[in-house]
Amino acid sequence: MSIFCFSNNQIVPIESAGVPVTDLLVQRGYGIFDFLRVAGNQPLFIDAHLDRFFHSAEIMRLPISQTRAEIKKIVQELIAKNQLAYSGIRMIIAGGDAPDGYTIEHPHLIIIQAPLAEPTLTLPETGIKLATYNYQRQIPAVKTTDYLMAVWLQPWMKEQGADDILYHHDGFIRECPRSNFFFVTDQNVLVTTQEQMLKGITRKNIIEVCKSNGIPMEERIISIEELKTAKEAFITSSTKRIIPVRQIDDYAYMLNRPDSVAKKVYDLLVGLE
Amino acid sequence: MSIFCFSNNQIVPIESAGVPVTDLLVQRGYGIFDFLRVAGNQPLFIDAHLDRFFHSAEIMRLPISQTRAEIKKIVQELIAKNQLAYSGIRMIIAGGDAPDGYTIEHPHLIIIQAPLAEPTLTLPETGIKLATYNYQRQIPAVKTTDYLMAVWLQPWMKEQGADDILYHHDGFIRECPRSNFFFVTDQNVLVTTQEQMLKGITRKNIIEVCKSNGIPMEERIISIEELKTAKEAFITSSTKRIIPVRQIDDYAYMLNRPDSVAKKVYDLLVGLE
Repeated sequence: MSIFCFSNNQIVPIESAGVPVTDLLVQRGYGIFDFLRVAGNQPLFIDAHLDRFFHSAEIMRLPISQTRAEIKKIVQELIAKNQLAYSGIRMIIAGGDAPDGYTIEHPHLIIIQAPLAEPTLTLPETGIKLATYNYQRQIPAVKTTDYLMAVWLQPWMKEQGADDILYHHDGFIRECPRSNFFFVTDQNVLVTTQEQMLKGITRKNIIEVCKSNGIPMEERIISIEELKTAKEAFITSSTKRIIPVRQIDDYAYMLNRPDSVAKKVYDLLVGLE
Repeated sequence: MSIFCFSNNQIVPIESAGVPVTDLLVQRGYGIFDFLRVAGNQPLFIDAHLDRFFHSAEIMRLPISQTRAEIKKIVQELIAKNQLAYSGIRMIIAGGDAPDGYTIEHPHLIIIQAPLAEPTLTLPETGIKLATYNYQRQIPAVKTTDYLMAVWLQPWMKEQGADDILYHHDGFIRECPRSNFFFVTDQNVLVTTQEQMLKGITRKNIIEVCKSNGIPMEERIISIEELKTAKEAFITSSTKRIIPVRQIDDYAYMLNRPDSVAKKVYDLLVGLE
């Protein structure tokens, strides 16, 4: 059975969908996207994802031909047609054909649905190891399709025995390639980065549940040195909600603490869906 | 009449060639390319371009399925089939389908031919204006498909009344998005950048003709301050050979000097083809 996607203004089997070899997305890496999780045929937090998608499009000067309502309708059509139990929806705006190879004239929407593992109902008990790397994403407030460094670093990451990369820029924490980063101070304050990174929808949800449940939390600059005194660390994404971190470079963190902030926040996130 | 390209291991009309929406090139911007000019049905300096293409592929861990001889054969087939008087050949390695969305498993070759204007036989008499911008290309020794910043900066560049962008990194000159940069000192020494930029084939040819013709020339670090004392400046690329620069930000340069190094070098470059 084919999975269907939206490409070239129609719903087609994914094998038959292609981006023209003359497209700015192919030739110049010029595009944006957003990615959301679908559970029980419901696209989760789609309004927040569309807010970010349209914001990315505006900054990158990639006008979207469809309205938000039209995009939601296409997403619902794909969900109904594909009947995947758990899945992710990727919405892409490709730069489009540029007769001069440079000027944005025909940006276009692609929507892909793909199966995805369901996150567990409670916080995972095992944690991952992060390896820090000095890198600043370009145009960091935008979810561009630029993952050149992330893909390129995969062999290096494995050499470090790590499961993911934590970008810092000259000693100041930014983000993981596909996740935001949080840690808990020795004063039990949950902290996340504020600038020069992509603001995730799960990150936004966490900030909101912390506010409404009286969990002490700060958005601010984080130095790499501070990680040594952290009680707990975790990363967040739409696909996994929260993944605990057991180690960053040479610093190990205790998992499954009785007072775990990650656990408390995870349960509140599950409640939002 | 269709123009033909090489995609999915066959020669097909360009309209029917597409990169799968699941490809790493589309989803993660992971790919490399090279671009060369074709004149009189001859692909110019193809060995040097293939050297660089295979080098880019090696650094980016994108194995090329075809041998150099096979690629040359495909290029010749396209040239014979398309019969374009003057053209450019773009060879791309796309990251390919990655079942996990991240791991390079099926990189593949795409070759596109497109019409191109023939450069003039003598150095153009009019020059362009460059606007400097603080930016360091990521993985700068590799011709990746990442032109996110270059495309994004086009409106800014036009606001500056400029024709192209000159990247510097914290005051040290790098390159233009699609060209290398040269200037002539008040001591009549031709100078070009040496590090943290892509080494062009025209740049390589210029260094060689300078050596074999006794034209004083240096590859070294260039500070943005030095541009104020330059006698002459120009940019170089495979499509245009040399374009004189009449202005960088607020500094103007005299064009068509009787002792122009650009003119001397241009004539030597034409002789190489």
